[in-house]
Amino acid sequence: MKTTCYEDLEPGQIIEYGRYTAKKAEMMAFAREWDPRPFHIDEAFAKTTLYGSLTASGIFTLAVFSKIFNVGTGGLATHGALGYENLKFPAAVKPDDVLTGRSEILAKRPSKSRPELGIIRSRDSMTNQRGQTVLDLTVAYLIEIRG
Amino acid sequence: MKTTCYEDLEPGQIIEYGRYTAKKAEMMAFAREWDPRPFHIDEAFAKTTLYGSLTASGIFTLAVFSKIFNVGTGGLATHGALGYENLKFPAAVKPDDVLTGRSEILAKRPSKSRPELGIIRSRDSMTNQRGQTVLDLTVAYLIEIRG
Repeated sequence: MKTTCYEDLEPGQIIEYGRYTAKKAEMMAFAREWDPRPFHIDEAFAKTTLYGSLTASGIFTLAVFSKIFNVGTGGLATHGALGYENLKFPAAVKPDDVLTGRSEILAKRPSKSRPELGIIRSRDSMTNQRGQTVLDLTVAYLIEIRG
Repeated sequence: MKTTCYEDLEPGQIIEYGRYTAKKAEMMAFAREWDPRPFHIDEAFAKTTLYGSLTASGIFTLAVFSKIFNVGTGGLATHGALGYENLKFPAAVKPDDVLTGRSEILAKRPSKSRPELGIIRSRDSMTNQRGQTVLDLTVAYLIEIRG
């Protein structure tokens, strides 16, 4: 697979990622392990909430984005995320939602402390099959400079 | 377990959460599923990186915080997070790190659209056994008003 480095990404560039179906059993198992609130793991209770059905943990939603981002950018020479700004969950992920992701490169600059690395800022989002945004964040990540 | 509602939390209040040991097998399994970058899943490669060893996915770090937060606040009448501000990973989580968490309540206000709910803003962080911060974020979450 072709490696994508700092030089290959420019502000304004948009990258889109393939589909992922959020299965009920998977989102419940994830929540039982990491975020066992009743509205994530108890179907009967979840029907009584303002969402009207089971919802995924926001951390599951972020994990699904990470998965499709990894598949969609397998050759990205990243050294990991520095952090996220303004991470929002405008709509909840529900069972059988079909999710697609998108990144828009906002800015790039060389690292001050590591001249072999650059920092990319990217606005990332994920949308369900009804066109609702389920995840919206800006991420800064380290990436290799081909040099 | 006593239920913790909007009325029970006040700005300035600090809540601390118990320990969690991040085991290598668990962090690698999580990364293989959700964030399969080489520096999270390939020990030999990870030794060549600037971190010098395997590191956990940031999403695993967030999931561990969620887990100890859930255990430490089991009776919290929350309806979920609206989003995170300025989520940072100042140091990476490494195998066998022992993690503790902490929340400081920053602000509270009633929801404008849902009078039965309030919104809490909380500065949350997690620290390893060397005193390094591995997670730092501000979260806004919905919580029931006892009324």
